[in-house]
This record gives sequence, C-alpha cells and structure tokens, in this order.
Amino acid sequence: MQIDVSQTNPLDVYRLLISVVTPRPIAWVTSVDKQGRVNLAPFSFFNAFGADPPVVVIAPNRKRDGSPKDTLSNAHETGQFVVNAAIADLAAAVNLSSKELPPGESEVELTGLSVLPSVKVAPPRLAESPVNMECVVRQIIPMGERPLSANLVIGEVVMIHVAPHVLDEDGRVDPRKLRTIARLGGEFYCHTSDLFQMKRPD
Amino acid sequence: MQIDVSQTNPLDVYRLLISVVTPRPIAWVTSVDKQGRVNLAPFSFFNAFGADPPVVVIAPNRKRDGSPKDTLSNAHETGQFVVNAAIADLAAAVNLSSKELPPGESEVELTGLSVLPSVKVAPPRLAESPVNMECVVRQIIPMGERPLSANLVIGEVVMIHVAPHVLDEDGRVDPRKLRTIARLGGEFYCHTSDLFQMKRPD
Repeated sequence: MQIDVSQTNPLDVYRLLISVVTPRPIAWVTSVDKQGRVNLAPFSFFNAFGADPPVVVIAPNRKRDGSPKDTLSNAHETGQFVVNAAIADLAAAVNLSSKELPPGESEVELTGLSVLPSVKVAPPRLAESPVNMECVVRQIIPMGERPLSANLVIGEVVMIHVAPHVLDEDGRVDPRKLRTIARLGGEFYCHTSDLFQMKRPD
Repeated sequence: MQIDVSQTNPLDVYRLLISVVTPRPIAWVTSVDKQGRVNLAPFSFFNAFGADPPVVVIAPNRKRDGSPKDTLSNAHETGQFVVNAAIADLAAAVNLSSKELPPGESEVELTGLSVLPSVKVAPPRLAESPVNMECVVRQIIPMGERPLSANLVIGEVVMIHVAPHVLDEDGRVDPRKLRTIARLGGEFYCHTSDLFQMKRPD
C-alpha cells in the first residue's frame, strides 16, 4: 500500500500516521492561564530531544471546533508548563483529562487528582504522578494554519522531580516501577511491561 | 528526588531524561550523502507531530567524538530521509545499525538487510521494514553547540508505504501485526505486546 500524502485527505493521513509512529510517550501536561487557572491534558505528539539543554517538544492538536487547545494558549500566554508522567495506575485519569472542558473548568478536579507547587515555574505539578518535569517555553513553531497543522511547542526542562518509589537500589529509575503507558493508533494504548535489553554495539 | 538541571552534569541529565520520557518510538532512518552512499541508523528522539502537513521530528545525537552523526550531515547535505518502522523481528538489526561506522561504510550491508527505491526522495527505503515514510527536510533547528545539544530535524512526510501483512481486514494498521519496539532508559527496550483500549471521553 502506497499513500501519496498530497493526494490524501488530512484526516486519513492523521489516522495512518498515529498507527505507524508507535508507541508514542504521553506528556500529561499541567499549565496555567493568565488568571492562574490550572489545565491538565495528555499529548502523545511528544518526546525528549537532547540533554544540553534538555528539551521536550509537544504539539497540542486543535480542539474539534478548530480553536487552539488550552495548553497551547497557556504556553503562549505564560511561557511555562509541566510534563507529568502518564503511568498505568492512572490510565483512566489520563484518558478522562483529554475531555474538552471550557477554559477555566479544571480537568484536575474532574479526575479527582491533586497538585503540588512547582519550584521554578508557575504551573503546579501533578501530585499523583511519580515524575514531573518543569519546563520553560523556548520557541513555538507553527507548521501551518489548518485544523490538523501542528504547533511545535519546544520546552526547556529546568527541574525534574522523581518519586523515590520508582527508583532501583542504585538510585536509577526502574522502568518496571515507573510503568509508563503509551499511545498507538485508534483507541490503542500499550503498557511498558514486556521489556528486553540490548547492549549497544561497540 | 529533585534535580535542578542548572546544577547537574549534562550526561546525568541525559541518563535521567531517557529513563523518564518513555517509551520512545524508534525512527530507523535511511539517508544518503552527496555521493549517494546509504546510511542506516536508529533514533529514539523521534515522534510525529501533526498531520497537515504530516511532520516528524528526529534529533540525531552527536557521535562519541563530538562530530555530527551521518544522518544529520546527510539531512543538511541532501535534505531528505526515510523513516522505517523498527519492529520486534528486526530488533537485533536495529541495535546493530547504531554502530558507528566510518562515513561510506554501510550499516545496511552490516545488518544483512536490503533496500528498495523510494518514490519521491533519493534515499532508499528498507525492504524488510513494513512501514517506510519518505520525508523532506523542512527545517533544522540547533538547540545549542555542545556535545549533548540536540539538532531538531523537522521532516515533512510526503509518501508512506505500508506492507499488506500488517493491515487488518478493514485495511487499517493492526498494532498486533506491526509489533513496533520502543526505547526506554539504559539498555531497556519494550515490545508493544501488552495492549489495552480506552475510548476518548465525549
């Protein structure tokens, strides 16, 4: 099967793309608007890129009505966000927080979760998530102006919180304790339960 | 545990970052230099971002000696690359292709794999991989000049090849047939075998 993107409906391209670029890690993002109201939403157009400076990129989709997601508006308005780890025990809350509430109605309340203050940024971090990365927006790069065009939000990670219970005896993060979940195509998610190890060739 | 990035060694930041942003999808990238010599290498600083246009971002690390990876040089020189899916059956080859060969020595030969011509770009696609995405470089954004600084290579996907054997009866990609692998921290990888489904809230 060959799909020429220029000859294909963008929604079909979207559905295909999210089914072949897998598994996608999930940024569970807390952000605040100018009034300090907290937003929580999951994004699987997300990854880390480099470490000096440590950078993450997220691309909040637009809402179904074409308007920008609150996370994108907040990144523009306040220039900060926090990426919280999306883990297996909180999978239902991750999904529920993708609900489109009016700006100002809180997904944190909806999910029954709670927040703690961050150290270097205004948006709070999710108390129930074992990893929180405080980020400052470096740059926002629009890829286009259409409903399915991405806005790349490039954030520099300035502070990382890690809960002790996900560490091994040597103080390193143990993936069998962190238990992140990830996004695939359609309604599919995966667990990070079926692990294997490979040593990099010399 | 709180890690203030400004007070922490970049290599320690790197090790922590790749252990908490998980699982990372793997772009198994074919590219060519000006002489047309083919390079193959895996990158887990990778994801899709948006669909109109469909965009992928990869960030090739530098080599251990600080020089740019061939994939980055090739992206600069020829402005094109192909992202091939990294799947469970080819896990050993994915790992082997991360070996640092001198420019011009082919990781394709080293792994015993083979390539097929692409339709819209010069770099060939990997014959053994069930998904190939032909990409044109839109922009390369350096995040810094130090050894662990990322270069964000933003590619627009122009053509997608999907092997029929990974499709379900309705012609959609079935994750249980595609069986991508992903990267976690240290030497850990995961399979996309332990799946679950969640319907997005209305």
